[in-house]
Parts: sequence; structure tokens; C-alpha cells
Amino acid sequence: MPKPRPALIIGSVAIDRVATPFAQSDRILGGAASYAAIASSYFAPTRLVGIVGADFPPAFMRRYKRHGIDLQGLQTDPAGKTFYWSGKYREHFAGRDTLEIQLNVFQNFSPVLPESYKDTPFVMLGAIQPSLQNHVIDQLSGPRKPFILADTFDLWIHTTKAELEQLLKRIDLFVINEDESLLLTGERNPVLAGRHLRRMGPRTVVIKKGAHGSLLFHSEGYFAISAYPVTKFVDPTGAGDSYAGAMIGYLASVNRTDFAALKKAVAYATAVSSLTVESFSVDRLSSAGRRTIDARYRELVKITRF
Amino acid sequence: MPKPRPALIIGSVAIDRVATPFAQSDRILGGAASYAAIASSYFAPTRLVGIVGADFPPAFMRRYKRHGIDLQGLQTDPAGKTFYWSGKYREHFAGRDTLEIQLNVFQNFSPVLPESYKDTPFVMLGAIQPSLQNHVIDQLSGPRKPFILADTFDLWIHTTKAELEQLLKRIDLFVINEDESLLLTGERNPVLAGRHLRRMGPRTVVIKKGAHGSLLFHSEGYFAISAYPVTKFVDPTGAGDSYAGAMIGYLASVNRTDFAALKKAVAYATAVSSLTVESFSVDRLSSAGRRTIDARYRELVKITRF
Repeated sequence: MPKPRPALIIGSVAIDRVATPFAQSDRILGGAASYAAIASSYFAPTRLVGIVGADFPPAFMRRYKRHGIDLQGLQTDPAGKTFYWSGKYREHFAGRDTLEIQLNVFQNFSPVLPESYKDTPFVMLGAIQPSLQNHVIDQLSGPRKPFILADTFDLWIHTTKAELEQLLKRIDLFVINEDESLLLTGERNPVLAGRHLRRMGPRTVVIKKGAHGSLLFHSEGYFAISAYPVTKFVDPTGAGDSYAGAMIGYLASVNRTDFAALKKAVAYATAVSSLTVESFSVDRLSSAGRRTIDARYRELVKITRF
Repeated sequence: MPKPRPALIIGSVAIDRVATPFAQSDRILGGAASYAAIASSYFAPTRLVGIVGADFPPAFMRRYKRHGIDLQGLQTDPAGKTFYWSGKYREHFAGRDTLEIQLNVFQNFSPVLPESYKDTPFVMLGAIQPSLQNHVIDQLSGPRKPFILADTFDLWIHTTKAELEQLLKRIDLFVINEDESLLLTGERNPVLAGRHLRRMGPRTVVIKKGAHGSLLFHSEGYFAISAYPVTKFVDPTGAGDSYAGAMIGYLASVNRTDFAALKKAVAYATAVSSLTVESFSVDRLSSAGRRTIDARYRELVKITRF
């Protein structure tokens, strides 16, 4: 077994209120970095860069710590409140509406890497503004070129496309969902969209299709995986973030980024995100344990082999 | 190699006019039985039961014959015209509308099996009225219990649900698309829908999700396959029919119906239907050849393994 390398996660930390067609939650731990860091922590030592306010519940801090997440990069602004997001999923989970956003301390967030983080070999840039994602890359200064995964979301495609295009030339792995890939490339066929995205810069692209699995595009080939057959679907929030977090964590754990390792990372990400959707917040993701993740990974091997 | 057993296909034969957002065709060979029989013919000796009118073009007959299809069961009504269907796909292939239907000779079609067909061990019942599908089963009288695959479509779920439910208790393999599975079971989650359908009778259920692959439910387990990565998408008409035809033909060719064989049948069906959508009518399906199908099957193995 290789010695796991550390993984660095940069992104939002939030307090969420989520309503689904079936249930309602309030003041739960949210934010891309929360989901991604906990997912990554199952595989590799994980460092978190983000910002919270004075109201951030100690129980949420303890949750991170229970996963051994390095919180040196998590700033606390004692004068502010934590980023707050409230959203509601439409019937049959056909889209969601944001009911309330309070950016709070996240408004002026500029990620600053602690000195000891600057040589992290595996980095995930959550879907913050592309200019900030680029700013993080500028701070990386290890002796070895880091492997960089980036996520984005529709707002940045609409408002800061030029910065996003610049970012794409600097990263190794771009993880995006099907709707966003259409928005960014104009290609409705995800196979063509994936190829198009690779021409924009990253050597590897993953297009996530939710309950329909995901697609991996790499210079050495194409890979498609079905979703894990979830039957207890509670809340999709954070599924994509934990997917990306599991990918970077797995790659760091094996210290490899070749096509074979990327395929396995996609399978682990599929297993991990299938847990995330089985509860609100990080509850199921956090309580599942590595053994459950491994069991779902093996199940994925079994149900896709012929 | 086992000696291939014959497969019997019962269903509609039609002359189609199909419009897509990009192109238009007219008076092309259509009908579920045409797609299914040609697909099946790549794997096993294939028998066709259907009806055509005096206007049925000799070129279409020759097409069947070129695939070695046994046409003893194809009735010609010299006093009538062939079933005619004209449809138009909406933008982005989001659904389709029927523009014109002339049932013609199909209106009073009652499938009659030639004596020599009655012991066919592998039978596909295309999506004709459930009462007619049941009527075909009544005529099967071989020494060995035949393996029966059935397809259906939304009209029968709406109008003749009781007969359909009766049919489900008599068949071995039910092949249905995702929308129809929701309509029939009320289950939006295809994993739950598949389990529900199995409780309605058939030991094996396949739910087709188009560009998102398909799911196989069997007493011994669950199997999920991604779609073949089609980039030249022309017309989806007949994709589901050729999928089912390839399944029955493959199973007949290996003379097996166990879980492992069913998974392989689903993979071959995925390969075959990916060809169907690359042209109007059966053009690409018919010209592709077994070698291309086998190459796509191997490609599916490769792009889904990790």
C-alpha cells in the first residue's frame, strides 16, 4: 500500500436549511467544503480551507475533527456570521429553488493557504468564484506540481466565463454536472460535451449525471459508470461535492493519477455520493464509515460486470 | 459453441414517415417487428409473424430476406394497405408526436402461428395489444416451455391494464422503458419500479433509460449498464425494438436464460440499439454486420470495467 498523500479542499462552509418534497431540515451543516472534506477524509489526510462566523456550532467543528480533518486553514471571523443558505427542492426533485442566501463572512472570503498547506500534492477547488480558484493555484508552491481538481456551477458560467476558461487551462481534472456541461459547451450530447471540455484545458473531465451515473473523459480513453442503486433517497444536496471530495481523497490515497486510478476514483466517488443522498446534511456520509463505502464499491463492481 | 435455437418475433410491420429536428424521412421500413427481427437475425435463425398490405415494397421484403428471416408467418393482405405511421420528434428529442396513423391491415391483425413456429423456444411479443400477446402464448405448444419476452407501450397501460397484468404472469422477461415503468407501477425510482414489476410476474425485468443505459432485475441480482457512447444520433425510432430483438436473439443463440446470459444479452442489446439510432429506419442496423456489433460489445466491456 502506498503512503496516502494529503488532500486539500477549498470551498464554502455553510449552515443550511433544506426542504424536500418529503421533509424539512434546519440549521444543518452544509457547504461544498464540508461534504468534500468529510468524503476525502475516508481516504487521505485532509486539509480544509474555508471561513465561518462566530455562530458556527461547536458540534459542526467536532464533526470535522472526528474525521481527522486539519482545520488550520479554516478561518473564523468573530465579527461575522456563517454563510447561510436555504433551498427547496421541487416536486420529484426536478430542480431546486434558493429561498434565502446570506453570504455573511463568505462575501469577502479570499482563501489564504497556511504555509504548511502550500505543497499539498492533491487539491480540490470547490465551486467558488473562478478568480478565487485561480488565486489558490497561485499560492501553491510545492516542489512537485500538484494535481488539481476543480468544480464550478452555473452562476460562474453565466457571470465569469473568461476567468473560468482561464482556470480550465490550469487544472488537471474538471468535475461538472450534465446541465452545466451543456451550458458551458453548448453540446447537449454529454459525450461530445466531455470531449469539448477536454479541449478547453483539463486532461481529465468527469460529467456527473446524478441518478444516471457519470462519464470520465481522459486522454487514454472513455469510462462510464452507472449510479449505485439508491432506494432511500432523502436529499441530493452535497452529492456532487462529496463525489469530488472522494475523487481527490482516493487519488491522494494511492498517490496516482493515471487512467486506471481515475476510473477507481470515479467508482469510489459514486459509492460515497450514494451515501450522501440518503440523509440531510453529512449525517449518513459521516456515519457510514469506510467499510460501508468499500462494500458499495465492491457492489458497483458486481452490478456492472458482465 | 451451442447450436443456436430459433427465435420468433411477433409485432407490427409498418411504413413510416419520421421527422427529427434535423432531418426528414418518408416511406421507410418501420414497425417493431422489423427492427426486432433484423436485430435478432444477427444471433439466431429468426421467424417473423406480422401483416402487410399489397403496397409493401418488394425492397423491404428483400431486406428481411437478406437477413435470412423466415417469413412464413408474415401474412400479406392483398386487399389492404400496410400499417402507416408518421411521427415527429420534438426539439432535443424531448418526446415525439404522432402526426398520422393509418392502421390499415394492422387493424384486424390477429397473429396466427404457422404450425412449424409453435415449438419456437425463444419468443418475443412486440408491443401489440396484450390480448393478442396472450393469444400468441396460447398457440405455443412445443415440448419445452418457451422463454417469452414481452414489450408494451403506454397506450396499453392506459387502456388494457388488466390484460397486461394477466400477460405479466405468463412471461419470463419484461422489457419496458423508464416512463412506462413509472406509469405502470407508480414508482419514480427505477430500482423500486423494477422490483415492483418483478412482483407482478416476470422473473426478469429490464428497464431501458435510452441514452442513460439500462437496468436488469433478476431473482439472482441486479445489473446496470451504461449506454454505448453514440455521437452520431439521427433517429431513436426502433431503438427499443432492436434492443429487445437483440436480447431474444442472443439468448436463443446460446440457448441459455440464466443471469449471466441475461447480462450478456443486455450488453449485446445495448450495442445493437446504439447502431439503430445512427440512421433512419433499419439502415444502419441492417448494414452494420455482426462484426461491428461484436466490436461495440467489446467496447462496452472496456468502457465499463474498473
